[in-house]
Formats: sequence, C-alpha cells, structure tokens
Amino acid sequence: MGLLVNGEAGGTLDPLDRGVSYGDGVFRTLLLRDGRAVCWERHYAKLRADCAAIALACPPSDVLLVELTEAAAGMHVAAGKVIVTRGPGPRGYAPPAHPAATRVVSASPLFTHPTAFRDEGVVVRRCRLRLGIQPRLAGIKHLNRLESVLARMEWSDPVVAEGLLLDVDDHVIEGITTNLFLVHESVLHTPDLSRCGVSGVTRERIIEAAVRERVPVRVASMTWQEVLRAEEVILVNSLIGAWQIRSLESRRWTCGTWTLRFRDWLDDVDD
Amino acid sequence: MGLLVNGEAGGTLDPLDRGVSYGDGVFRTLLLRDGRAVCWERHYAKLRADCAAIALACPPSDVLLVELTEAAAGMHVAAGKVIVTRGPGPRGYAPPAHPAATRVVSASPLFTHPTAFRDEGVVVRRCRLRLGIQPRLAGIKHLNRLESVLARMEWSDPVVAEGLLLDVDDHVIEGITTNLFLVHESVLHTPDLSRCGVSGVTRERIIEAAVRERVPVRVASMTWQEVLRAEEVILVNSLIGAWQIRSLESRRWTCGTWTLRFRDWLDDVDD
Repeated sequence: MGLLVNGEAGGTLDPLDRGVSYGDGVFRTLLLRDGRAVCWERHYAKLRADCAAIALACPPSDVLLVELTEAAAGMHVAAGKVIVTRGPGPRGYAPPAHPAATRVVSASPLFTHPTAFRDEGVVVRRCRLRLGIQPRLAGIKHLNRLESVLARMEWSDPVVAEGLLLDVDDHVIEGITTNLFLVHESVLHTPDLSRCGVSGVTRERIIEAAVRERVPVRVASMTWQEVLRAEEVILVNSLIGAWQIRSLESRRWTCGTWTLRFRDWLDDVDD
Repeated sequence: MGLLVNGEAGGTLDPLDRGVSYGDGVFRTLLLRDGRAVCWERHYAKLRADCAAIALACPPSDVLLVELTEAAAGMHVAAGKVIVTRGPGPRGYAPPAHPAATRVVSASPLFTHPTAFRDEGVVVRRCRLRLGIQPRLAGIKHLNRLESVLARMEWSDPVVAEGLLLDVDDHVIEGITTNLFLVHESVLHTPDLSRCGVSGVTRERIIEAAVRERVPVRVASMTWQEVLRAEEVILVNSLIGAWQIRSLESRRWTCGTWTLRFRDWLDDVDD
C-alpha cells in the first residue's frame, strides 16, 4: 500500500494529533482505478461538507488528488482513503486558534470478496449494537467510529458479508460499511439518516439516478419488518458498488433485477 | 511537557493507528504531584474497566506508572494523560487478530485558572450541543470525543469556565470536562450516566465519601429546572477538584459550604 502524511511518504503522526486524542476529523473511502479517483467531484464535495460541519479547513482538491495518485502508484485498482484531522494541539477540547490540519492519504488493495457476493448475493446479520441518536453528527463520515468497530467485532465468520445496524429506537439505519435500499411494490426505500448513520456518495448517486429514471424513492424511517418483507434488499458503497442480500435471519431472497439495475446506474457515468 | 509513545520519548504514531482511524481507544486524565499519580488505584481500575468495555488489552499498571513519572520529570504538579488505542491495523473496522495496543503517556503543565474560580466560584454556560444517547458507550472515557470538541467550540470568552451539557432528551448530564453535583434540601444529586456522559473518578470519590458521611446521594436523571433551583451546584474532576458555580444564565449563587466540604473529602485521603 501507499501512504502519505501531509504529502510525505513514510510520514508519521504527532502523538498530540487531535485525530487520535478526540477523533477530531473526517474521512472518505473511495475507489481508485489506475490512480484515478472515481467520482472524485462527489467525494470531494462530501469531504468539504463534512469538514464544514465540524468547522475544519478542508485541504484543496488538487492536493488530495495528486496524493491519491501517488499513493496508488503501481496499483490497477485500490481502496483510496483520505483522513483529515484538526492536527496537533495542546491538551484540552478547545482547538488551537490556528489549527494546522493533518491529512493522511492512502491506497490499499481491495478486499478480495468471493465472486458469489456479487453474483448471488450476500449473507448478512443483524448487529446487537444499536446506533446512538445524535442529529448533530448524523450523516457525517467523522472519525468517531467506535460504534462501527464494536458492531464489526460481533462476528468473525467470513460467510457473513455485512452487519445491519438499527438505532436505539429500533429504526433500521445502514450496514456497517454500506448504505441500504429496499424494494417494495416497485418503490425504492432507504433509511432517513438525519438522526444517525453515514450518508454515502453511492447512496446519493442511486437516489439521483432513480429520480432521473422516474423510479419512486422514499427516504424515511424504516422498521425491521419492512426489511424482512421487502422484495429485494441491496447494499451499496463506493468500493463494492451494489450487493443484493440473499440471506438474513430466516429470510431468503432469490436474485432479483434491481441489483443489476443499480449497477447499470453506477456504471453509467462517473458522476 | 513530557511525552512517551510505547515507552519511547520522542516517539511518533503510525498513521494507521486505529486511534486516529476510528477513535478506537480510551484515555484518562489525572493529577501528577512530584511525579506521583494521585488516586492511581482508582484511575487504573477505571482505565482497565474502560478497556474491557471495548475489548481492549490494558497495559500493566506498573508500566504506566513508570512512564507517567518519567513524563513528569522536573514538574512539581502536572496534568497526566494516558491514551490506550487498539494500535495499528489495516483498513476495515474489524480489529487485527492480535492487536498491539498503543499507549501515549504525557504530562503537561496544569492550566492556570484565576484563583477566583476556586475561591468565588465559576461562570458557566449551557451548551447548545446536545449529547447523543448511546448506552453501549455511556460512562466510558473513550476517544470518540467530537461532541466535547464541538461543545467547547461554542465560546471563547475566558470568563466562562465550563459548559454544561444536556442530552437530546433534555436531561442535564455533565460539564464538558467535569461531572456535576447539586445540593437541594441537604441531598446531593448527580446525573445518571447510563445513557451518555463520562463517569469520572472524582464523582465516584464524592459519592463514596457522602455515603460514608451519611449524606443522602441521589443518582438520577436531572432537569435544567432542578439545576437552576438548587442551593448549590458543584463541578468536579481530577485536576480542578471542586468548583462551585456562581453564575449560570440569569441565576446567581453565593458561596455555600458544600464546595469546601467536597474539598475536605477529596483532600482527606488519596483514595
């Protein structure tokens, strides 16, 4: 893998970086193809919005793009990651008057998932961990990700591809690393993320494509029963694209048509 | 200040440390007096409990003590800090099979607060930020502290010594860096921390001392009106000891007797 800290290969982090002290920062994960960041405009817009949401200066787009390309040197495809923190600071929650943001840019090999995940669908589980309710941080891909870590620690069976997360009020929110859509009576449903969860770029692309194609989309709170009752349930993110769920608790689904349609939408243009 | 990373002075952090990637770790802040960690047994017990709560191996007590003493070399009093993270790991929320915890041990000068904070009480404000509800992480002093950062960014006036935090359901929980007690009709009240907030060692010492002295203590949910109606409101933590609130919104308090009593309890023994 390739990794740069503030543009420097082999760079390390100041132990006083507020990224480690407080998780004071945000990040993005995205697909790199031949050193090119797929859907960069969208990812950068989201990174900038997430930075703004916690009053953090966002590094310039061209700086990050050059560093992603350098990190991915020699890799045909890779998982790019950009972390932006508020940088080093003395003890105390109050940020320094003039913080110097830290950026960690890396490219790692993609996980090698079984081809069946893509072709036949995936087995998922319901996580015991419930997401907390925090509207102030909802949607933001910030560095406070202990919930995701604890949820992912609930299983080690490699057959289980993803865990689904509900919030403390019993609403279905997302997968640990994915957003979720379900199809019911030709309407797409995806959970409202205004109280918790992470709003991903691929979710946004699917919603926009559906609107463009005049497929009705409903963004609202979602119950567990609605998931089990759905005709198809599909997980999306920037690295996997779209996977259909084929098994969840006692429910089984056969391959439907919507996952292919999602992939067409995502392949259509790099928007 | 003195700082050691895994025992090494001048050490740096791996940019892939899960502390920065996910806030995957816990910490303690404590008073160091002539290189000695005040109330170490309690702090270590809490550190170990917090590590256990997120399934993290806690470094041995004697290792941390030696490092705190080394970090505080030449300082009469200092703010000690111990961070324990799950260490470096590849991309992905799943921890490595055999994580190697990272420890960052430091000693910084204490903040120099005006003597009036201690002698006459402090001006505090109500924070706009509301704490999210997350029972799974409540009480734990973990590294996911964006809420604290955002709350502390709400003001810069040095006259305001602390911000009080309510949760999204309107319960009073704590100060940003302190726990809170109020006195009403000779009963001590402190908020329940089972749904959010950080449970501090000084809060625990006060509760135990009160029980020992047969002062009734009530740990329960608390409303804003109860705070404003209280005869005294007192903030506590390991570094400041106890400060009475003298001004909050339009409410003013004169110096009461309880803050001195709290200090007696805290000075009594190093327990």
